[in-house]
Amino acid sequence: MANNVLPLIRLTEQFEKLPGVGRKLAQKLAFHVLAYSDEQAQAFADAILDAHSKIHRCEVCMNFTDHEVCGICSDPGRDHSIICVVEDPKDVMALERTHEFNGTYHVLHGLISPVNGIGPDQLHITELVARAQEGVTEVIMATNPTVEGETTAMYISRLLKPFSVTVTRLAYGIPIGGNLEYADDITLRSALNGRREI
Amino acid sequence: MANNVLPLIRLTEQFEKLPGVGRKLAQKLAFHVLAYSDEQAQAFADAILDAHSKIHRCEVCMNFTDHEVCGICSDPGRDHSIICVVEDPKDVMALERTHEFNGTYHVLHGLISPVNGIGPDQLHITELVARAQEGVTEVIMATNPTVEGETTAMYISRLLKPFSVTVTRLAYGIPIGGNLEYADDITLRSALNGRREI
Repeated sequence: MANNVLPLIRLTEQFEKLPGVGRKLAQKLAFHVLAYSDEQAQAFADAILDAHSKIHRCEVCMNFTDHEVCGICSDPGRDHSIICVVEDPKDVMALERTHEFNGTYHVLHGLISPVNGIGPDQLHITELVARAQEGVTEVIMATNPTVEGETTAMYISRLLKPFSVTVTRLAYGIPIGGNLEYADDITLRSALNGRREI
Repeated sequence: MANNVLPLIRLTEQFEKLPGVGRKLAQKLAFHVLAYSDEQAQAFADAILDAHSKIHRCEVCMNFTDHEVCGICSDPGRDHSIICVVEDPKDVMALERTHEFNGTYHVLHGLISPVNGIGPDQLHITELVARAQEGVTEVIMATNPTVEGETTAMYISRLLKPFSVTVTRLAYGIPIGGNLEYADDITLRSALNGRREI
């Protein structure tokens, strides 16, 4: 098996490079693709090349799009005076699924992380500051409640201080359906501090 | 995000078709591939098409190969009088890793399974019977110890009865490093029945 199935080994290696795919799964996936019809294999290969060549960052919000400006930024029905700042495009998808938000987004493509050598210059913060000065009334910081997420939110809110724009942060608290008993101390403390009159 | 990123959605769907890959992982993989360089994306696509077009079944043993006859079947250093019968190419890989077996293989590409509508005609049994008549002294049935594996092993051994060939079966028993306490009854019974003098 070993030496004369190089194409199979190469395909297994390609799958193994993907995150969350170990040696065993990579082999399984390679065998699976081997059983594809010609059309199926071509469709898979085309999907990779197509996504890679056609998808790029929206020139306004930096979200992925296959147009110059993404569907959200070019939608006159959305409220362009509110910008929700997120770490990456997956966060936009998650928020869009709620159907709760009708503003626009700004995708940083990362968070400030000195440990990983990522500074503000490597994120799309300059573009955000520029946008914030063009009729924007509120910037919602929707980065994750982690050290990096908090640092980035604080950094950006300080940058936006000089402009007439309200900077807000997503609410922290007990997840809906969650259990007080199992909530960690920090979440519980946030939930207490953020309590609201009912 | 939704409508104007069709190429990204198509790639996610391609990943989702793979076994063991759910919606979440498929999305993660698609985003990962999006961040590839041109060369990396091309290499991945090429690996799929290459494996698909170049890998086929060895005309002797039915294992995957990119030659007409696979490296094992064409190796004069292997013992061609012994054939080890397995369900699929992954089993060949597993056995080859042991460096314990120097014979040849025969890959059925499936097992007899009336429940799934797979009969003997859909497997490569005719080819095996033909091979068994050409100077073969032993056929080792190395199908899995499942109902389908046993049925297939019994079926083939009966077909081979008329020829002067010994049909053997892999030994069953407690896995090395295993614990008697945790072995299931059937394995334990097989281990007892298969006991050998030491």
